[in-house]
Amino acid sequence: MIIALDVMGGDKGPREMIRGALAALERVPSQVMLIGTQETIEGVLEEFKESSPRLSFTYTTEVIENDDKPVQAIKRKKDSSMVVGFDLLKKGEIDAFISAGNTGALLAGGLLRLGRIRGIDRPSLATVYPMKGKMGILTDAGANAEVKPQNYLEFATMASIYASRVLGISSPKVGLVNIGTEKTKGTPQLLATYELLEKSNLNFIGNIEGRDIPLGVADIALADGFTGNVILKVTEGVATSITDHLKSMFMKNTGTRVAALLVKSGLAAFKKTMDYTEYGGAPLLGLKGAVVKAHGSSNHKAIMNAIVYAQKYLDSGVIDEIETYVKDRSEAVDEA
Amino acid sequence: MIIALDVMGGDKGPREMIRGALAALERVPSQVMLIGTQETIEGVLEEFKESSPRLSFTYTTEVIENDDKPVQAIKRKKDSSMVVGFDLLKKGEIDAFISAGNTGALLAGGLLRLGRIRGIDRPSLATVYPMKGKMGILTDAGANAEVKPQNYLEFATMASIYASRVLGISSPKVGLVNIGTEKTKGTPQLLATYELLEKSNLNFIGNIEGRDIPLGVADIALADGFTGNVILKVTEGVATSITDHLKSMFMKNTGTRVAALLVKSGLAAFKKTMDYTEYGGAPLLGLKGAVVKAHGSSNHKAIMNAIVYAQKYLDSGVIDEIETYVKDRSEAVDEA
Repeated sequence: MIIALDVMGGDKGPREMIRGALAALERVPSQVMLIGTQETIEGVLEEFKESSPRLSFTYTTEVIENDDKPVQAIKRKKDSSMVVGFDLLKKGEIDAFISAGNTGALLAGGLLRLGRIRGIDRPSLATVYPMKGKMGILTDAGANAEVKPQNYLEFATMASIYASRVLGISSPKVGLVNIGTEKTKGTPQLLATYELLEKSNLNFIGNIEGRDIPLGVADIALADGFTGNVILKVTEGVATSITDHLKSMFMKNTGTRVAALLVKSGLAAFKKTMDYTEYGGAPLLGLKGAVVKAHGSSNHKAIMNAIVYAQKYLDSGVIDEIETYVKDRSEAVDEA
Repeated sequence: MIIALDVMGGDKGPREMIRGALAALERVPSQVMLIGTQETIEGVLEEFKESSPRLSFTYTTEVIENDDKPVQAIKRKKDSSMVVGFDLLKKGEIDAFISAGNTGALLAGGLLRLGRIRGIDRPSLATVYPMKGKMGILTDAGANAEVKPQNYLEFATMASIYASRVLGISSPKVGLVNIGTEKTKGTPQLLATYELLEKSNLNFIGNIEGRDIPLGVADIALADGFTGNVILKVTEGVATSITDHLKSMFMKNTGTRVAALLVKSGLAAFKKTMDYTEYGGAPLLGLKGAVVKAHGSSNHKAIMNAIVYAQKYLDSGVIDEIETYVKDRSEAVDEA
């Protein structure tokens, strides 16, 4: 199998991307393909003086920037690493495509160049979220600002398949993010979604509130993409703010530095829980191929883990199972 | 002045409410009125063996429960502490009303029994939010699940007046919570809101993302009530989850307990930042009177602080200034 990486995406630049790819080669059996401009890739590899028979290259000439308008960028920059990546995936020349670049462009490219699984209305971004010592999924993490009840159901189903096959959570609990746990809470949209989820085969545990997400009441926190994006970023902000406070607390004087040494292993565990670079990227579920969005500020470790998770994603048969789900559903409708 | 407290609201029961009221008497010049059933109030006061010439009572017979339907409860339970509180406020017999009870009922009561300031379309809940060492405001924190651009503008204006007069923030920076900082991000609703805010007299700094809120990029984080409620509760959940982790880290063995002693003052400061009981309640801005929602799980300290902040709120002339703003605005429209 071939896992391709968009070397030109991400805030930290191609060097971190390529460093991550080289590290991943020691952890995955697949080939890793670097997609980007020849000058950039050759320059970095020369610096690292590393290579592997499992490393391959596809050279492109254009770059999609973070402030490019998504649809325009995908339509105009035909020889960008992102468009080329999607086209290779569509042709079956690669098996997975990872990018830390412009999220909007990645979505647009997924829809315009690769396409959705037949029967899926909207793809959704499913991101791993630390839930009190275990891993859970937050979806949609920002692909669709406005969604219909049917979309929520699809998001939850796809995330359940991913959580069970890739994260190993059997019968993952789905919680609908709302402003109260009672069935009667929320917008008309959410009331209708509750009904749909209740009738589904999912392990739906009802509404959950914001505080229930990090406390791990559900395995899958289900939200529209606007709310999901806000949840993810508030979490980052609160964690950063607390981490900064702890840092200055422990750096204050000799006594506090000794304290830091005494709780070293606990602090390391804390740091690891809060460290998104541990979790790999977020799959864009519902596309006709394995597409993974890595965090914009991914460092080499985050990229390495994104490749490791992409391998798990490929090995797990998630996409086949989503296709089966859609097929079974449409057959059930035909019979009805 | 008279600040009245709904003794029957709140998850911790009347004892905590009354204990908080007694403590507040030492910190505010106003009279404090307890509203609730005679048996409850007399029972608690007998236990505490405390009284004050500045403590007064209004006895009621009904209680609005947390699972009562808001509008129904307000319409049917005419002799509940909440309805009586609103009626006293409307008649001018008290100056402020504080409740830790059913949020929906408090909103419904505010609208049905007390009424809005003429010209304000929707009242909003403005809650204090810790923003990297300083206090800021999150609004709407849950009063209106769906809002129009004009509502956002009113929320931001009322919160700016409150932040400047009660929290002492001069020219508070208003940030619109969105899924990206670019002007072109978000739903059509948010795009229109951005335009309105840009043309306003507010200190509007543009869109902010979730992570910017706890990091204090703005002084006022502006959101619809659904998003605001989720932000507030995710923040609580993340803080609780991290606090739990730190607790078990420091309790692990003798060495880690020593570490806790060495960073004692830093931990106390951290605990204080994370402690909502420090911040008093959240005013329901836009009502024809000072109404303050205290956190449902308020303890005596939270209630004491809610009373202290209610005093500041009364002394600061916020409501008069909101009335002037609405009047000026309607005159400007007339002239146009």
